[in-house]
Amino acid sequence: MNDIVSVDPRTGGTVEVVGSETGTGGVDALCRAAARAGRAFGADRAERARLLHAVADALDGRREEIVDTADRETALGRTRLAGELTRTTYQIRLFAAAVTDGGYLEAIIDHPADTPMGLRPDLRRMLVPIGPVAVFGASNFPLAFGALGGDTAAALAAGCPVVVKAHPSHPATSRLVVEIANGAGLPAGVLGLVYGQQAGADLVQHPAIRAVGFTGSLRGGRALHDLAAARPDPIPFYGELGSINPVVVTPAAATERGDDIAAGLVASFTLGNGQFCTKPGLVFLPAGARLHEDIAALVRQTPSGWLLDGRVQAGFSTRVGELGRHTTLLAHGRPAEGAGFLGTPALFAVSASTMDSDVTDEAFGPATVLVSYADTTELLEALGRLPASLTATIHTGTDETDLPALLLEALRDRTGRVVWNGFPTGVAVAAAMHHGGPYPASTSIHTSVGTTSIRRFLRPLAFQSTPDSQLPPELREGNPLRIPRMVDGRQQAS
Amino acid sequence: MNDIVSVDPRTGGTVEVVGSETGTGGVDALCRAAARAGRAFGADRAERARLLHAVADALDGRREEIVDTADRETALGRTRLAGELTRTTYQIRLFAAAVTDGGYLEAIIDHPADTPMGLRPDLRRMLVPIGPVAVFGASNFPLAFGALGGDTAAALAAGCPVVVKAHPSHPATSRLVVEIANGAGLPAGVLGLVYGQQAGADLVQHPAIRAVGFTGSLRGGRALHDLAAARPDPIPFYGELGSINPVVVTPAAATERGDDIAAGLVASFTLGNGQFCTKPGLVFLPAGARLHEDIAALVRQTPSGWLLDGRVQAGFSTRVGELGRHTTLLAHGRPAEGAGFLGTPALFAVSASTMDSDVTDEAFGPATVLVSYADTTELLEALGRLPASLTATIHTGTDETDLPALLLEALRDRTGRVVWNGFPTGVAVAAAMHHGGPYPASTSIHTSVGTTSIRRFLRPLAFQSTPDSQLPPELREGNPLRIPRMVDGRQQAS
Repeated sequence: MNDIVSVDPRTGGTVEVVGSETGTGGVDALCRAAARAGRAFGADRAERARLLHAVADALDGRREEIVDTADRETALGRTRLAGELTRTTYQIRLFAAAVTDGGYLEAIIDHPADTPMGLRPDLRRMLVPIGPVAVFGASNFPLAFGALGGDTAAALAAGCPVVVKAHPSHPATSRLVVEIANGAGLPAGVLGLVYGQQAGADLVQHPAIRAVGFTGSLRGGRALHDLAAARPDPIPFYGELGSINPVVVTPAAATERGDDIAAGLVASFTLGNGQFCTKPGLVFLPAGARLHEDIAALVRQTPSGWLLDGRVQAGFSTRVGELGRHTTLLAHGRPAEGAGFLGTPALFAVSASTMDSDVTDEAFGPATVLVSYADTTELLEALGRLPASLTATIHTGTDETDLPALLLEALRDRTGRVVWNGFPTGVAVAAAMHHGGPYPASTSIHTSVGTTSIRRFLRPLAFQSTPDSQLPPELREGNPLRIPRMVDGRQQAS
Repeated sequence: MNDIVSVDPRTGGTVEVVGSETGTGGVDALCRAAARAGRAFGADRAERARLLHAVADALDGRREEIVDTADRETALGRTRLAGELTRTTYQIRLFAAAVTDGGYLEAIIDHPADTPMGLRPDLRRMLVPIGPVAVFGASNFPLAFGALGGDTAAALAAGCPVVVKAHPSHPATSRLVVEIANGAGLPAGVLGLVYGQQAGADLVQHPAIRAVGFTGSLRGGRALHDLAAARPDPIPFYGELGSINPVVVTPAAATERGDDIAAGLVASFTLGNGQFCTKPGLVFLPAGARLHEDIAALVRQTPSGWLLDGRVQAGFSTRVGELGRHTTLLAHGRPAEGAGFLGTPALFAVSASTMDSDVTDEAFGPATVLVSYADTTELLEALGRLPASLTATIHTGTDETDLPALLLEALRDRTGRVVWNGFPTGVAVAAAMHHGGPYPASTSIHTSVGTTSIRRFLRPLAFQSTPDSQLPPELREGNPLRIPRMVDGRQQAS
């Protein structure tokens, strides 16, 4: 078995051997334990909500240690990681509240009735846990999208045990948070952790696993998607695979707010050293706008920073080389000096008429491409060639309405979230948020952020003419758990 | 191009040449037309609801012709088909009502707020049409699950154009109902029809198609599922592929209600000559119960009937032969006499301890297997080896509670609907219905019957900080279309 090591991106050196790759037998044992734990864990919402709060409290209680560990193996910085831990426990508690509320169960009761289709029997339906879930956390958010991140929190809230595949960028953080969560009282089998690429493939193919949550690269995600689809019993694969996140600046916006847009854009595409899935990767600007030079000037002042690991650094270097061949390098940031996995911000330029598919692929790291358009026709034509993204951003001038409407029309089928006069980085945890989009942004019609993401790990189950005593409490006639339900076509509050 | 012919199952003879197989160019033209029609069709709910009503009215207006055509090429009988047309137009009107109501859009508004995670921008989210949908109707319900059946109605209601693959069992019916629907005013491109197996494969792989609805065989469905998953951009495949529909009769139920259960079971497994996806295919009975002989006696009195087509007849014959090798033939119905694709009811028996996977595969047609169990242990062990089904039925005695609870526990992870003291055939169109289940019952976590099935053809789209004038009316501040929305965490009625 190969060792799983925690590496410090600031030096490139190994800090710790975290463990070794999980073998097929180890994966099997964890998946079987998850299956055994599932029924009891899925049945008791009150206990589950209590456990989620206990996990969030335990994580908050060991904040220093978690932030230190994550910073040491991601170099994302203590401030950012402290904020990310806050987000992590915030979303776990939001899910706990959703579990307590019970509205997510979509309980529906239709009493027996005479209908135009004849007599209808008593029918009661609710959503039930789908079963054990495999979660592949993201490299770039070791906490909020990591082992105890959004996918795990959503699956646990749904009542599904989780087996996490630790991301190789932060195995020590993954191990630590899983240990803390289990120490907070999660029943045996409810939360497991595996290491290694083959263990991940084994996990997706294990008979006990009923769904997969994945955040990562197009190549890795597609390979796992294909494994999930090729199983004897295919399972849903909820993957977020890559996104170019176009930003369009109208001529009026460039004139009115050029300075703000330049500053906001550079801050956004270099945030976390460009390692955001919502990083703006293509920026459409009117040809000849001064904005090009304003952005370049800001990029030249931006320092290099550490990338998450050697693989990310190698990938960024390759992608910058490719972009250099298909576009013009307009500026780069302050050169890298020192050890570790440094990456230097890079700004490229190309004209909309010559932008091809080599340019519209994601570059993971601090690079973006300015795309000059001559007129609205050329702009709309270029937008029509974009792949789908998590986000699409439109910057408009005051009182502009016709051009923005055309832009929205061109972009809405290619995105999961439209951002107006802002920047796409930063994904609020809220009911109205959507993080997803047509392929390759995601492989799913569901969101992966916010409480509605719980729907991915539930399936409907209907009961026909079933005695009250045999029904789940959520569907009993008297509504003993007082959850919101739709009864005979009318929504009833709790 | 091969001819597409309408065949009379009562004679086996060709009645009419309906058309010819649709070539790749023809499929492409229809898919492109669907893509062009999508935006306008998806945007106007009021117009869409009006069109759905117009389609339902037009179908009702040509009831005689539709029932005659369907009966001629399916031999399902005029009474059954008249009822099925009623169901078809009923569900189209139910979807129209859902479209008008707007609750299915799951509109959520979060106003800007200060949260533990910092300032949150204005966020508004709703579900939007996924885009053109390919629908493969079922053989066994030429109307309610046919070209204008549930999948098509759900997709149109969602705002998605549809291209239907006509089922070879009833091409003339498919052509007729599509002509009627288009004649009722559906805009050009909103509803297309293709013929032939290769056209179906082309459809699933066409870039404009964004989802697939399928009802049919495990083999055909799995092949199309795999095509959908292997696309450069995988799309959701909502398939219903096959179901054994176990029925469990407890010793107390067998004693108390043996006569009723025997009569109900034989009526259920021979309904529509056994061509229901919810047909009970395995019936667990206490060993030695008189019920075995009661059921056999009823089967011996049941006449043969026509199967849908020559392919179904051949498949049924093969499957009956296989069952004969792995079980004991207990009884068959009155022998077939006359022309056409006749199929004779067949009743098999096996003991729970020797029931293997050759027995638990679906037999499409009027056959079922009685499985004798010696005791509760043997029964539960056998249930633990069942594949998942659309339904699972439990017959219990008065005041029985412990054994039924064990049965429910054993079956609930293997089914989409639990039926108590009844029979699984007959799927009410209601909000609380669920038609689906773990694979191979379906490939999806969504239902395919009732208004909640609309969710399959929608995806979330979020708007961040977007001017009111650029928002869809459903998300504007004043709620001009008066739809139900969740605003700042509170559900608001229309």
